[in-house]
Amino acid sequence: MTEPRRDKMRLGAFFHPTGNHVASWLHPASQIDAGTNFRHYVELAQMAEAAKFDLMFLADSAAVRGGDLQALKRWPQYMAFFDPFTLMAGIAGLTRHIGLVATATTSYNEPYTLARRLASLDHMSNGRAGWNVVTSSNPLEALNYGLNGHPDADYRYERAQEFSDVVKGLLDSYDDDAFVRDRATAVYFDPAKLHTLDHKGRYFTVRGPLNTARPPQGYPVFAQAGISDAAREMAARQAEIVFTPLHSIPMAQEFYRDLKGRAAKYGRAPDHIKLMPGLNPVVGDTAAEAEEKHRYLQSLIHPDVGRALLSNALGDVDLSSVGEDEPLSPPVREAALNSGRSDAILVVNTMEREGLTLRQMYQRYAGARGQRTVKGTAVQIADEMETWFQARAVDGFLVQPPVLPSGLDDFCRLVIPELQNRGLFRTEYEGTTLRENLGLPRPASRYAGAGGPNRRPEG
Amino acid sequence: MTEPRRDKMRLGAFFHPTGNHVASWLHPASQIDAGTNFRHYVELAQMAEAAKFDLMFLADSAAVRGGDLQALKRWPQYMAFFDPFTLMAGIAGLTRHIGLVATATTSYNEPYTLARRLASLDHMSNGRAGWNVVTSSNPLEALNYGLNGHPDADYRYERAQEFSDVVKGLLDSYDDDAFVRDRATAVYFDPAKLHTLDHKGRYFTVRGPLNTARPPQGYPVFAQAGISDAAREMAARQAEIVFTPLHSIPMAQEFYRDLKGRAAKYGRAPDHIKLMPGLNPVVGDTAAEAEEKHRYLQSLIHPDVGRALLSNALGDVDLSSVGEDEPLSPPVREAALNSGRSDAILVVNTMEREGLTLRQMYQRYAGARGQRTVKGTAVQIADEMETWFQARAVDGFLVQPPVLPSGLDDFCRLVIPELQNRGLFRTEYEGTTLRENLGLPRPASRYAGAGGPNRRPEG
Repeated sequence: MTEPRRDKMRLGAFFHPTGNHVASWLHPASQIDAGTNFRHYVELAQMAEAAKFDLMFLADSAAVRGGDLQALKRWPQYMAFFDPFTLMAGIAGLTRHIGLVATATTSYNEPYTLARRLASLDHMSNGRAGWNVVTSSNPLEALNYGLNGHPDADYRYERAQEFSDVVKGLLDSYDDDAFVRDRATAVYFDPAKLHTLDHKGRYFTVRGPLNTARPPQGYPVFAQAGISDAAREMAARQAEIVFTPLHSIPMAQEFYRDLKGRAAKYGRAPDHIKLMPGLNPVVGDTAAEAEEKHRYLQSLIHPDVGRALLSNALGDVDLSSVGEDEPLSPPVREAALNSGRSDAILVVNTMEREGLTLRQMYQRYAGARGQRTVKGTAVQIADEMETWFQARAVDGFLVQPPVLPSGLDDFCRLVIPELQNRGLFRTEYEGTTLRENLGLPRPASRYAGAGGPNRRPEG
Repeated sequence: MTEPRRDKMRLGAFFHPTGNHVASWLHPASQIDAGTNFRHYVELAQMAEAAKFDLMFLADSAAVRGGDLQALKRWPQYMAFFDPFTLMAGIAGLTRHIGLVATATTSYNEPYTLARRLASLDHMSNGRAGWNVVTSSNPLEALNYGLNGHPDADYRYERAQEFSDVVKGLLDSYDDDAFVRDRATAVYFDPAKLHTLDHKGRYFTVRGPLNTARPPQGYPVFAQAGISDAAREMAARQAEIVFTPLHSIPMAQEFYRDLKGRAAKYGRAPDHIKLMPGLNPVVGDTAAEAEEKHRYLQSLIHPDVGRALLSNALGDVDLSSVGEDEPLSPPVREAALNSGRSDAILVVNTMEREGLTLRQMYQRYAGARGQRTVKGTAVQIADEMETWFQARAVDGFLVQPPVLPSGLDDFCRLVIPELQNRGLFRTEYEGTTLRENLGLPRPASRYAGAGGPNRRPEG
């Protein structure tokens, strides 16, 4: 019906320290000290670059996880973790092509500081920086930043939008051609091309200008996740990559159309938003081998961790009375359904519909941490990816290897060539910046063309 | 009288983008786009490492400079500038031995964020991170962070001390041996070795714990500058490197004795504070060549820049009525002396005592930006350095090449071998961390030894 897409599939590589599977650190092929091992990340980045990934992506948390220490001690996620932008800066000098997209919260940072870091990373990498704009959802982060509790979602989204706008305004401080650096006339920059933002908003008062040249990409590539209406609206306004988890083609198609449909009111082209949901590939030489790999990983989930994750999903109910091989008891079921937690209904319904025990349910829920797992041979996985891509359900995927580095190596060795053979994925980088490789425009400065070429009086 | 020192001289390399001289960007040997050129810094770092420098050092400003745009446009200092910790992270992966000391203000950062960045850099560099603790003195910085004006010095020093204490507390979150990473028992870390800081102070409320392992050095090396009583007290309490500018041996000896004398009351050894004031070397094959090099650099100072610098030093007086080759007129002299600016008296007195014209004075003042310049052959410069070192006026120097990269190259080629031949400076790195190379102890965690090996109940 619709003709095959002519654009290429976009691929990001998500590097969660030991891998995206909750038990990955227990797998013998994982780099067990990944959370403090810089070389591990450098090798992953170089492997992904050799495979022509558009970008690598790092998540973040500005706090340890909370909860039962008996589960935490078996579950290192975010317990030993690099600051993502510091790590990305280290990787910048040891890679040449791959995009470097990192997460930083708008809830507890300052726009001037973050704008400097983004501009520095973009200059250092010759135009490969990206920023995943998030609002903090872990209430423990608030306690590390002088707040008594977690701010509500409206506050966080409003602040996030104002934060992003200030960052862009600061990055426009100098026009692209402001630095003339002319020794003969002793003029380093043209003062008419330096702009003072003078932002006075609800959350921030920031004079500017930023003390750096406009970066190679103008702005870093803006990434985002989230599925709420507020998240969609912010994404339509500014996001260029969207990582929202999507679990079925119809769900993804709805999201894809909705998101791209919202772009027009912000004067944006639908093609300038790339939808790349998470994909956990478990690759085997045969389908049976892939199944066995996955079964083994699932078997590594410690009951304490599985229970802690599931208890949290069920609204922090006490699961101590429920055996591993039993369904939820009626009182626990009631407590979960009364918790008001949105995941609780989903989990209870799934357990009842499929007759799952506690262990079966936590394995299903915990394994990919809410993301989609695809198991099979390289051909099977490429088939699945192609189907989603051609259905215009996605523009690509954020590949989240369950175990690192081995899961990335599997994907690069087996799946990437299959995608390349089908003409779905690049064999060489098209450009030098992340924007060029993603087919995104370089944004003009807000001062460009106003009252003459790149001129506008100072704020 | 006193026997020659057995310890080695400590050398840091200060990388101001195009060089430390105010007119360095006009010199044909400077890297004119240094402020956005990552490779320039990498090459400088590698050159300094090959010469066995203890460390490289980056200053900072969280704002552009203020003032007359006609002067600013000729004077790029801090107008196009990398975020120092982002830059250092990039350099970490491309060097192996040299210490990486960067500036971050305590006035407008958050301790949790900075502790993460410091820990990340120390992990990434295998123990080479240092932090120059500053309080912001540029009032324009306040305007970029939502403040109406510049906070007073007491506030800034109190906040700086509390900030540093919180950073150290956060870095102690995990004991050094907390991460057992034992797959057999499925234990990643020992929960008894994770500590919640729960800091509640005047400026900060920070729960913790930090979400990273204690870094290789325990804490980064703490650096500081400043000469006031408050600065000396903070340095005695925590600084391990002190960069305060010192212009004569008697002045330096007084500072050296005073600072190290204050250490005992904080339970610190005098040797664990290394005094390394700035030194601007102008190296020639002959003394005459060095003089000529310096004269040429001074001649590059544009009158607009010289006047702006001098006007600022004189309390922002209007110098437009004073000719280049004239002394200060009586009304200007009066206005300067009434400005209350401490430098004003010094400048007026110097001009009168030596009969200097405006140009002569701004050249003297502007050239090294308040630091000490030493001109001569390698032997002469080494003589001067040795004299200061043996007089126990300093423990070493922060070498501030007037022009980069050529000034660093001169120093490394000519002066370093001379110092090495005299046995004053290392020929190989002694250790792997910056602390080891500087002869500084690795600080124990505050929880070490309390109620058992590395154990203490949580916050």
